[in-house]
Amino acid sequence: MVLDKLRAKFHIRKELVRAALAEFTGTFLLCLIGLSVVAQKVLPRPEVNEFIGVNVGFGIAIVFGVAVSAKLSGGHINPAVSLAFLTVGQITVVQFIAYFFAQFLGAFFGAAVVYAVYNDAINVFDGGVRTVGGLKDTAGIFASYPAPHLGLLNGFVDQFVATAVFVFLIAHIVDKRNSYPTWLQPILVGTGFVAIGAAFGYNCGYPVNPARDLAPRLFTAIFYGGAVFTKWFWVPIVGPFVGAVVGIWFYYFLIGFHTPQDAEEKYVVLTGNQELKPLTSKDATEETA
Amino acid sequence: MVLDKLRAKFHIRKELVRAALAEFTGTFLLCLIGLSVVAQKVLPRPEVNEFIGVNVGFGIAIVFGVAVSAKLSGGHINPAVSLAFLTVGQITVVQFIAYFFAQFLGAFFGAAVVYAVYNDAINVFDGGVRTVGGLKDTAGIFASYPAPHLGLLNGFVDQFVATAVFVFLIAHIVDKRNSYPTWLQPILVGTGFVAIGAAFGYNCGYPVNPARDLAPRLFTAIFYGGAVFTKWFWVPIVGPFVGAVVGIWFYYFLIGFHTPQDAEEKYVVLTGNQELKPLTSKDATEETA
Amino acid sequence: MVLDKLRAKFHIRKELVRAALAEFTGTFLLCLIGLSVVAQKVLPRPEVNEFIGVNVGFGIAIVFGVAVSAKLSGGHINPAVSLAFLTVGQITVVQFIAYFFAQFLGAFFGAAVVYAVYNDAINVFDGGVRTVGGLKDTAGIFASYPAPHLGLLNGFVDQFVATAVFVFLIAHIVDKRNSYPTWLQPILVGTGFVAIGAAFGYNCGYPVNPARDLAPRLFTAIFYGGAVFTKWFWVPIVGPFVGAVVGIWFYYFLIGFHTPQDAEEKYVVLTGNQELKPLTSKDATEETA
Amino acid sequence: MVLDKLRAKFHIRKELVRAALAEFTGTFLLCLIGLSVVAQKVLPRPEVNEFIGVNVGFGIAIVFGVAVSAKLSGGHINPAVSLAFLTVGQITVVQFIAYFFAQFLGAFFGAAVVYAVYNDAINVFDGGVRTVGGLKDTAGIFASYPAPHLGLLNGFVDQFVATAVFVFLIAHIVDKRNSYPTWLQPILVGTGFVAIGAAFGYNCGYPVNPARDLAPRLFTAIFYGGAVFTKWFWVPIVGPFVGAVVGIWFYYFLIGFHTPQDAEEKYVVLTGNQELKPLTSKDATEETA
Repeated sequence: MVLDKLRAKFHIRKELVRAALAEFTGTFLLCLIGLSVVAQKVLPRPEVNEFIGVNVGFGIAIVFGVAVSAKLSGGHINPAVSLAFLTVGQITVVQFIAYFFAQFLGAFFGAAVVYAVYNDAINVFDGGVRTVGGLKDTAGIFASYPAPHLGLLNGFVDQFVATAVFVFLIAHIVDKRNSYPTWLQPILVGTGFVAIGAAFGYNCGYPVNPARDLAPRLFTAIFYGGAVFTKWFWVPIVGPFVGAVVGIWFYYFLIGFHTPQDAEEKYVVLTGNQELKPLTSKDATEETA
Repeated sequence: MVLDKLRAKFHIRKELVRAALAEFTGTFLLCLIGLSVVAQKVLPRPEVNEFIGVNVGFGIAIVFGVAVSAKLSGGHINPAVSLAFLTVGQITVVQFIAYFFAQFLGAFFGAAVVYAVYNDAINVFDGGVRTVGGLKDTAGIFASYPAPHLGLLNGFVDQFVATAVFVFLIAHIVDKRNSYPTWLQPILVGTGFVAIGAAFGYNCGYPVNPARDLAPRLFTAIFYGGAVFTKWFWVPIVGPFVGAVVGIWFYYFLIGFHTPQDAEEKYVVLTGNQELKPLTSKDATEETA
Repeated sequence: MVLDKLRAKFHIRKELVRAALAEFTGTFLLCLIGLSVVAQKVLPRPEVNEFIGVNVGFGIAIVFGVAVSAKLSGGHINPAVSLAFLTVGQITVVQFIAYFFAQFLGAFFGAAVVYAVYNDAINVFDGGVRTVGGLKDTAGIFASYPAPHLGLLNGFVDQFVATAVFVFLIAHIVDKRNSYPTWLQPILVGTGFVAIGAAFGYNCGYPVNPARDLAPRLFTAIFYGGAVFTKWFWVPIVGPFVGAVVGIWFYYFLIGFHTPQDAEEKYVVLTGNQELKPLTSKDATEETA
Repeated sequence: MVLDKLRAKFHIRKELVRAALAEFTGTFLLCLIGLSVVAQKVLPRPEVNEFIGVNVGFGIAIVFGVAVSAKLSGGHINPAVSLAFLTVGQITVVQFIAYFFAQFLGAFFGAAVVYAVYNDAINVFDGGVRTVGGLKDTAGIFASYPAPHLGLLNGFVDQFVATAVFVFLIAHIVDKRNSYPTWLQPILVGTGFVAIGAAFGYNCGYPVNPARDLAPRLFTAIFYGGAVFTKWFWVPIVGPFVGAVVGIWFYYFLIGFHTPQDAEEKYVVLTGNQELKPLTSKDATEETA
């Protein structure tokens, strides 16, 4: 079959290279779908996208961004998530750096395609004059800008808490002791993100991902000028990085370290559907402890 | 790996302690996400959260609140659910008391973090003067207050029925005879809660959980004063407790006691996907009966 | 354990009796949740339930109504569905009659509880004077009334088509050749119903179920008088019955009869997750044919 | 049983014929549900369908359109998807042609039934005078018409990008190396389509399917006249065809060719739930390379 022949020829053997390519692709997909979802809400039209539409659309963007890259790179598509996994020893510093650049590049190109898809709509809306803020603003499609009520400190708290919760959930989902089916994990991550959006979208639009915020912001600098780099711009970078690390460690200290060993014991197939009896005693950890 | 070493050091061996910690964490997560979801709807802004957003967001908060604590404590995160399980002999009185305090504490701290995340927004909205009821009310973010049309008796009926239905569904979901996959159970509990919100959110906002309502109410007493303890405040405590017990027993008398034994028989893998043949005859219960 | 002792004592051994009890319970649950969901939309309030909320809420009501009764009765909770299964020989005439009465009774009591939960709200809205139609109508919470544009013939077409599509989907979902996991089937039925509501809710609110429409209508006759029996009332009874039968046979003639045998062949566990190799050749049906 | 006898009599043995019948049925179902969902939004009424309702409703239409035809034809129900699979050698040219006609016919008849279900509503709205465009337009129920802001080139980009993303996701979902459970695949395809609608519904309503757009357009020509063939009409035909082919190849070059072999190795059941150990070494592909 043609696919097998081409695979033999083009298959990338270096794990890091293909992992970086996967992170690029996943983050590209995330931003291509996710920023378009935001565009559909921000741009004016009788039948606008409701907030729930943004929320669900972005959640599904996460599901597939994670899913397509999961087998090649672990499916981070977010440097804050990568940093969290770095601190627990799941990836190396070299991997982190490669992932970061791949994610950043993917987000940048994702933003570019969104700009092409919504070009006519933006032009008709702002008359061809790109502005940051104000009634004709469309920069908010690509990067986060805080609501007027929000101070920088509260903004940091918002991004810190939102990312901490999100990464706490991710740590729970991918923890092998919880034995979630592989196919379910990206779906759960995306589902968790829907909740993040419903809970923490009010203050500044829940970026929760430095690549997803910074790279499209840089892209918009080309067309909107330096005004996109407001004094806010570092918040959705630093907040998520700090929050992600705190979130993953909270998971381990509150839950992960205390989950019983059972799930790791050997099993034999005896009873029905999903009901497997452990070969060793029920709470091995506790007994040997 | 660093995680294994830390686990060896910090792993809590006492089942009750780690169960209480899990209930604390699950209820903390539930209230942190759930109350933020409510805040996003209650606080004013052009693009408000729709009711469906609250509904879905709170449902996902339940999914993960239950999921993270399920393996350690059973994932109650609601004292009414714990009471129901106490009456069917699934937990002891000591466990119930430990769970209750853990849940209460988790809800309290969850409310505190929500207060921090939405501090600027609340200040801009009410000018720094916290009020209970009226146009500038934000106390409704944290605890339930009945709609004007609702009397106390009808309010009790509402909380009684809503919790009875919810716990009926939970009893169905966790009943081993129904052999739901482990990973599915928290998802189904959260899905059921979305229906509870769509069906019973109208009268008083479907608290259905004494810890989720009382602890954040107590927290708000610090900033909003004693006015948060209206004559309503006991309804979302007593209603859920009574409803939960009635709900679980309704499940067993109407459905649970009559489910055929099949699901418990031994199986051998013979036929395809999920199609397993029992070693014993089809309706063992009925024959031996 | 207490549950085991009580089970031994109360377990109903007659299959038909416990099936009828299950149909009663499932349809009770369906109407208790489902009609409450409609009430939340119909009754006036700033933050009304959106149509999507009704849609999703009713869909989940179906999921659990079907799920709790599935192992005892097959989970019809709809006489039109029962009639369809009767015509393909899956249940007998006696079963159909028992199911019908159980479903009707369940729907009636479900409506009664909804009336209790929303009593204060209805009273405040209509000043205690129950009316059918007009600005203060609340009869629409319990039974279907057509939109002004709808003629009886088009109404019949609507209910015929909507139920035909719904039962077509159900026939696909429960067809053993499609080997859906047991736990998934009620979820898929409910998901299908969400689509029915999004597609066929416009004309008369997609009753698609004679018990769900007639029994609550009869209940409302007590409080709203004979006016609830408009000339429309037979449409959501006859339409669904006819549509259900046509729907199930369309499924078999268009799809079911042509599905390859594979799914029924024996398998051995050889490869990974869900990947099972048939012992016999790939398309046994076709070869032996 | 009656079904078995009828099956023996009516079972179609020719694979291509039953595949075409399945594509007809799946696309019929897709358009019957999908266009009704759009009708519910487009037609005027106090409680209109929200955009999220269209989005979710159409997504579920995809789920079941794909699911009912999957075992017989692969579940394309979209000629652009069929073309993409043709280019990777998964179907032949003969199959493609048969699929195309079946899909077209299914979409045509689906549109006809929708026209019957919404006949009264359309008549009351436009007074019996069918118009394309303007305030009384109902042609938009059946086929896509671009928003005023949209030029043809940007429209092509929109349909190209939306279909490329959609088919990229489909290629990921059905790739055997990703070993998604069979039952999950149609659900994921529909979920992906919800994201496509949330991201690319703004410009022209995300047709993304030449059969779904052209066949209903042809149907409306009967009642609305030749005006339905605006200069736009070729865009949602050509755009999806080109986008689908680019999308599937992007998947293989960016992700598919680089996915490790693991998923194809043999496994033995050793450890718990879903945790299976490969018999051969972890990264066979890489080692033999």
